[in-house]
Amino acid sequence: MYDLAIIGAGPAGMSASIYSSRYGVKNIVIGQPGGLAANTHEIGNYLGFETITGFEFAQKGEAHVKKYGAEMEYALVKQLSKEDNVFKITLDNSKELEAKNILIAVGTAHRSLGIAGEKEFLGKGLSYCTTCDGYFYRGKTVAINGGGDSALSAAVFMADIAEKVYLIHRRDEFRAEDFWIESVKKNPKIEVVYNTNIKEIKGDTKLNEIILDVPYKDLNSIAIDGLFIEIGFVPNVELVRGLGVEIDDGGFIKVDAEQKTNIAGVWAAGDISTNSNKFKQIVTAAAEGAVAAVSIQKHSKKVAV
Amino acid sequence: MYDLAIIGAGPAGMSASIYSSRYGVKNIVIGQPGGLAANTHEIGNYLGFETITGFEFAQKGEAHVKKYGAEMEYALVKQLSKEDNVFKITLDNSKELEAKNILIAVGTAHRSLGIAGEKEFLGKGLSYCTTCDGYFYRGKTVAINGGGDSALSAAVFMADIAEKVYLIHRRDEFRAEDFWIESVKKNPKIEVVYNTNIKEIKGDTKLNEIILDVPYKDLNSIAIDGLFIEIGFVPNVELVRGLGVEIDDGGFIKVDAEQKTNIAGVWAAGDISTNSNKFKQIVTAAAEGAVAAVSIQKHSKKVAV
Repeated sequence: MYDLAIIGAGPAGMSASIYSSRYGVKNIVIGQPGGLAANTHEIGNYLGFETITGFEFAQKGEAHVKKYGAEMEYALVKQLSKEDNVFKITLDNSKELEAKNILIAVGTAHRSLGIAGEKEFLGKGLSYCTTCDGYFYRGKTVAINGGGDSALSAAVFMADIAEKVYLIHRRDEFRAEDFWIESVKKNPKIEVVYNTNIKEIKGDTKLNEIILDVPYKDLNSIAIDGLFIEIGFVPNVELVRGLGVEIDDGGFIKVDAEQKTNIAGVWAAGDISTNSNKFKQIVTAAAEGAVAAVSIQKHSKKVAV
Repeated sequence: MYDLAIIGAGPAGMSASIYSSRYGVKNIVIGQPGGLAANTHEIGNYLGFETITGFEFAQKGEAHVKKYGAEMEYALVKQLSKEDNVFKITLDNSKELEAKNILIAVGTAHRSLGIAGEKEFLGKGLSYCTTCDGYFYRGKTVAINGGGDSALSAAVFMADIAEKVYLIHRRDEFRAEDFWIESVKKNPKIEVVYNTNIKEIKGDTKLNEIILDVPYKDLNSIAIDGLFIEIGFVPNVELVRGLGVEIDDGGFIKVDAEQKTNIAGVWAAGDISTNSNKFKQIVTAAAEGAVAAVSIQKHSKKVAV
């Protein structure tokens, strides 16, 4: 029986494990070390590392977790249930675990377009996180894909950094806050391409061109240095629906200041949670994991009285 | 004119600067790099660094800030005022700055006892943060000083890690939540010493003894391996009182999910703020700095429309 099973091995899960182990809370981390961060080509905004690859960061995190004695299972959770205040967890490698608390730190997936070249050029000119990777395109030409707040704020954001920003949207109008729409329209560096889908991404070692489904200025393609796909997140909440955990309209797990959900013993941290103003960063995930760990430790003591 | 003046150069301020610089927000950081973290003898719970000294961490942070082009002023703020939506800042080196936004990231000071040996043995057996440094005293004998929630939860926390915990309190009863008082009383590893002050801390290369103002079990001293002084925090809010910034009962600056205070253009992050459930850690401070930076960047754009 574990005091805590941490589901998800990204920054939130790893940080929660380090804190928990140091607190004497017996814990296990389930998942692939690093989570989404492991796929980041260059991390430059996590205080203390001027630059580090996602792969290296994941390795450091894993070693850090193991140093303090936590177990790790490189597996997925297949089934999850709660019986008499004990969580029963079945993994896809057929192992079964029991825990008094679970921390949901499964993160979110970026919604993808599902087009040719998308997998190939990820980290080679293609990013799903403008606020993370925008900096690498100083003075360059980029395209943003999407029509909501994320896409529009990303376009305005990139206009400060890049030389030229194309904003490509499949509809003829935006579904975003007025001030973002106004900001986009007023910005001379942003050129909006309405009613258009990206059909394919092309390049050699890095992407250099996007192919459109309808011609724009008589051409079927636009030459760019970087593409940011900002069409939303897919929170991985399927697992916890059966437990009755409260989910917000965006699909994120509602937590209080302690990272506690509405269900006793169920905690959430990182991109999947509603905290940190939903800013999805390594540092915010790691911080939420730390807060969850100290809260779980304190809560366990209180319950024991 | 700076877009943002960051007051305080600890983890919150440094992280905010890195994010801001990458966002094209012209910023300056005012303070001594590392803040309180610079004095930590060993940091083991910040994801990615298995172990690093506070001094090294501060150096890495400073280099990281400078890499992205922010200016730093190794000075203290002497005067701060707001006129026509511009903040005017006078430093103790007589320099004067102007900024559109200010981020208060000045942290808190640990309340100290002001006794002999306290400065000498800091980091050599003496700590003001049990949840940070408790791990280093596995199987040892420690004393906690204090009588509030922090001290009592620290004693319960250390009882899981240490062999023996003395809880030394100057009064004859605790001023803490009932469940912490009950937890302390029920815990066989915790021995409470009431009506007693620590008069002096003694040792050689590390502390090994505390001298009491009244005898305990016929002795004027207790032999220990570690001492945790948990008598509260002193938030450094004097600077912002004149601006009308809302402060909570504990003396911390009230912020919303964006790290925004009640005064336009004034933001707060790190130990001084009410976020992260007031858990005072490097990683939570750095996360709040990141959230503040993205909020300031977005807010500036909105205002500009």
